[in-house]
Amino acid sequence: MNRTHNCGELSIKNKGEEVILQGWVKKVRNIGQVAFIDLKDMYGVTQILVSDHKKDLLSDLKSEYVIKIIGTVIERKSKNLNLSTGEIEIELKELEIINKSEITPFLIEDEVQVNEDTRMSYRYLDLRRPVIQKNLILRSTVNKTIRNEFDNLGFIEVETPIFGKSTPEGARDFLVPSRLNPNNFYALPQSPQLYKQLLMIGGFDKYYQIARCFRDEDLRIDRQPEFSQLDMEMSFSSASQVQEIIEKVVKKVIKNTVNVDINEAFLKMTYKEAIDVYGVDKPDLRFNLHLKTLTEIFKSTNIHFFSNIKSIDSIRGIMVESLLSKKDLEILNEAANQKGFNSLAFIKHDNGNWSGSLASSLSDQEKEELIKVFEIKDQATILLNFGKYQKVSEMLGVVRNKAAEILGLTNKNDYKFLWVIDFPLFEWSEEEQKFVAAHNPFTMPHSSSIENFESDKQNAIADSYDLVLNGFELGSGSVRITNPEVQTRMFEAIGLDQKTIDNNFGWFINAYKYGAPIHAGFGLGIDRLTMILAHTDSIRDVIAFPKNSKAHDLMNHAPGNVAQQQLDELYLKIIQKK
Amino acid sequence: MNRTHNCGELSIKNKGEEVILQGWVKKVRNIGQVAFIDLKDMYGVTQILVSDHKKDLLSDLKSEYVIKIIGTVIERKSKNLNLSTGEIEIELKELEIINKSEITPFLIEDEVQVNEDTRMSYRYLDLRRPVIQKNLILRSTVNKTIRNEFDNLGFIEVETPIFGKSTPEGARDFLVPSRLNPNNFYALPQSPQLYKQLLMIGGFDKYYQIARCFRDEDLRIDRQPEFSQLDMEMSFSSASQVQEIIEKVVKKVIKNTVNVDINEAFLKMTYKEAIDVYGVDKPDLRFNLHLKTLTEIFKSTNIHFFSNIKSIDSIRGIMVESLLSKKDLEILNEAANQKGFNSLAFIKHDNGNWSGSLASSLSDQEKEELIKVFEIKDQATILLNFGKYQKVSEMLGVVRNKAAEILGLTNKNDYKFLWVIDFPLFEWSEEEQKFVAAHNPFTMPHSSSIENFESDKQNAIADSYDLVLNGFELGSGSVRITNPEVQTRMFEAIGLDQKTIDNNFGWFINAYKYGAPIHAGFGLGIDRLTMILAHTDSIRDVIAFPKNSKAHDLMNHAPGNVAQQQLDELYLKIIQKK
Repeated sequence: MNRTHNCGELSIKNKGEEVILQGWVKKVRNIGQVAFIDLKDMYGVTQILVSDHKKDLLSDLKSEYVIKIIGTVIERKSKNLNLSTGEIEIELKELEIINKSEITPFLIEDEVQVNEDTRMSYRYLDLRRPVIQKNLILRSTVNKTIRNEFDNLGFIEVETPIFGKSTPEGARDFLVPSRLNPNNFYALPQSPQLYKQLLMIGGFDKYYQIARCFRDEDLRIDRQPEFSQLDMEMSFSSASQVQEIIEKVVKKVIKNTVNVDINEAFLKMTYKEAIDVYGVDKPDLRFNLHLKTLTEIFKSTNIHFFSNIKSIDSIRGIMVESLLSKKDLEILNEAANQKGFNSLAFIKHDNGNWSGSLASSLSDQEKEELIKVFEIKDQATILLNFGKYQKVSEMLGVVRNKAAEILGLTNKNDYKFLWVIDFPLFEWSEEEQKFVAAHNPFTMPHSSSIENFESDKQNAIADSYDLVLNGFELGSGSVRITNPEVQTRMFEAIGLDQKTIDNNFGWFINAYKYGAPIHAGFGLGIDRLTMILAHTDSIRDVIAFPKNSKAHDLMNHAPGNVAQQQLDELYLKIIQKK
Repeated sequence: MNRTHNCGELSIKNKGEEVILQGWVKKVRNIGQVAFIDLKDMYGVTQILVSDHKKDLLSDLKSEYVIKIIGTVIERKSKNLNLSTGEIEIELKELEIINKSEITPFLIEDEVQVNEDTRMSYRYLDLRRPVIQKNLILRSTVNKTIRNEFDNLGFIEVETPIFGKSTPEGARDFLVPSRLNPNNFYALPQSPQLYKQLLMIGGFDKYYQIARCFRDEDLRIDRQPEFSQLDMEMSFSSASQVQEIIEKVVKKVIKNTVNVDINEAFLKMTYKEAIDVYGVDKPDLRFNLHLKTLTEIFKSTNIHFFSNIKSIDSIRGIMVESLLSKKDLEILNEAANQKGFNSLAFIKHDNGNWSGSLASSLSDQEKEELIKVFEIKDQATILLNFGKYQKVSEMLGVVRNKAAEILGLTNKNDYKFLWVIDFPLFEWSEEEQKFVAAHNPFTMPHSSSIENFESDKQNAIADSYDLVLNGFELGSGSVRITNPEVQTRMFEAIGLDQKTIDNNFGWFINAYKYGAPIHAGFGLGIDRLTMILAHTDSIRDVIAFPKNSKAHDLMNHAPGNVAQQQLDELYLKIIQKK
């Protein structure tokens, strides 16, 4: 018998039982005649009472040793009611050391004073910290809930290939050289997008999968080269039917993880409205701070700040219901700088007294209209700037989030979901100097854009939708193009020539020539959702073995060199980087 | 509204209802004044009745068109009780063509007369065949059942990385060049073996995952470069505790898929016994045909066939309870040839009359003893040969399976499970001319071999176990080495020098220096299990988008060429194969 119970299981009900436990030594404490071992595992901590005549068993014992003990459950004299096992202790009879431990490079505790690189080099020890275990258990609850819900809704899990085909559209592919087909490469999937669409053509009606996806991007903090995505697709279905399913599943995830009931339906908002009111396509709805357009108010102003304004510019602002300090304003200016703007202008109002950079030149009518548009009461700070409508809005969106942070408006236990719909179909790529697909080139143009999306790319709308939670994009989806002619037009619209279309997507367009159902779907990032629910700021806290910001695994030293023979077999030669 | 019901859902209970259906046109039949559309989806087929005055709606309609119909459920005149919807039909009111179909390259039917390459090139159409849909639904039931059981047993699902480190031990790795770390490569995991062991060190007690695994092997028929594996590991656990869990889960899978109750515990057998009685480490227990050693019987024989026998050779045979035809014997000889043996000798017995290649030289005593050892009754054919014990046993193992096939002893609805335990720790590699780890180099030597496994590699036994079903290995597992000294000894035993050990596994051995629990685990191939349960002979029938025997995806043409820019970014140069 290895153990009769785990270290979090015993209670006063087990009083008198002889038990066998195994676990890690958390601490050994000598208190007068007796000693105590705190024995831990992922389920909890149990106190072992070592009487005087057994204390020689402890001579060798150190923290993080794995031991097996046999003993009797007795009632504790001084109970610890913070601990599930706090009413009992085990009177030690036998002790066996299973495996010893050297002194660990950091203490195995939730609050650990060590840099992240060291934690990652010894990730197996880092994983022993209760906070990380809790995060990964939460993650498994997220996955379990998602799967149970989709199973119950009649969705079929289908595993799609990791070895796919490289296509030049979208983000950069990771490549896998094929030894059996030298000079040829598989690509790892950025998502199972094409496969799931083909499943719909294949009649698979309701598909889901928690899929591993890969993007070879220049790493930013908190971006991993691989990530997990809930991927789903439905035939004979509209956008709102997909949203309904996702809403149901996500609500259940919230319930099963953080035990919050969300009863109301998720709000819906167009992309246009999101930019107009929040300055961002993923608004955080836990606070208001709405953006307002002030161009009309200042149309004949004397304010010097607006002397450089152009006819295409908008004046926009937000209002905070308090008097911001100089330091607060500096922080917000930094946020504006991020978006390429210089300083924000600001106006303060304190019970009828106006101050701030623009106050002295404000006309009475301008004051009156500002009070009206922002519904100013006692105190207010208005932050404003001008520029092209989209740019000044985006800048204020960043300022808005930062202001909420300063003002403490972002309660982590508040979960505000939102559907943002009707995204632009295209976006301008500065790098490629052309319009590219904003979501992906398989997204159906909105019915209002289906006739002329090629000729009016600037304004073309997609039948797409993002799910937003507390300012984070959780995932996105769309109705798909299911007509081969529209699909060809779309590829042409993003600048692919006929040869490229034929070579890369000919087989895919062809698939839609054999009777395709209308279908729509969604992809939701598991890592980010779990991160939000775990109330952590780092995605690495919810991944068992993450890579660092240089895509290194500091524990096993991947990626690494490989033997010449491995390269020879792949008919590859390394070029030394200079 | 897209549809009110699917095509397998309506019954006589819905009589009188107005319904909306969508699906694929299976067939249009004109019968006198009226016409019928068979409308299909993955759930079934519903008959649509088209009255005379609506028949112009059909002029354009062809097989595999996707249509939407509105109509009323009515009772059928001639009922088809083989069909769930066979008591009703829909009287057509409106019909809309959603998407047309060109003529498909093969008929979308279970029994399809087309070569596999064509099916694979149009896999999205192949997937529309009910038999393939049934297989993939079965697969999703396998996964769902496994996950539910492990969840209920308190196991935590942990997702381990796809981007790992290449190690020279084991099968060949697939490599992924790192763009951010030029000249460095990730390796795709052959299994999550090291990660799951590290999770145990990290305190994760009960881990499971359905993991994608990758092996760059020379392809055989029915071997895919990627495959799915149920992967699990338990701390504070023995081999038999792991087996108990797996048994429980697998029994539930059998129940939920093919609706068979397996009440008795799985048999256990040592590797040695399996080879002795069945000639193979994965015996098919649906039939007997036990191997017998006949060396003693023939120790002073006059039979010419045995004149080349060496002192180290064993004479072994199996007995079939019927008189095999010349053709049957030829088939069995071919099976022997596969294993490098020439013809089998055979002796027939028919109610006291002896015939066959050896019969004329058989002594009476030999006849008597053969009757005794094989318990011969009326009719019998004995197949026998000689050679080294292991080799002749393995050969007869192949002959045994082939004989059972000929005799029709392999009932597909019979599920005979077996644990084979105590495998050899090492096996001789002809290629490398050294002993290599038979399972993997992390497997604990059996307690009887722990002292001297290095010096007696030939006879060292592992604390490992395979699960066998009907002659297939479903998976394997072992107790792991959890002592860093034993792990180092093991690496040395398979011929790694200290530098290689340090470079490749130093970090891993180090992990076991910080307090590791005893742990054991298992890996089970999802593809093969599903294949057996689906009663198909090809693993490609249970994979949504399989590769062919050359590792090609004939649908999307992966693997393919990539752009020069992609190679440049990776600092790689292609060497043209001559």
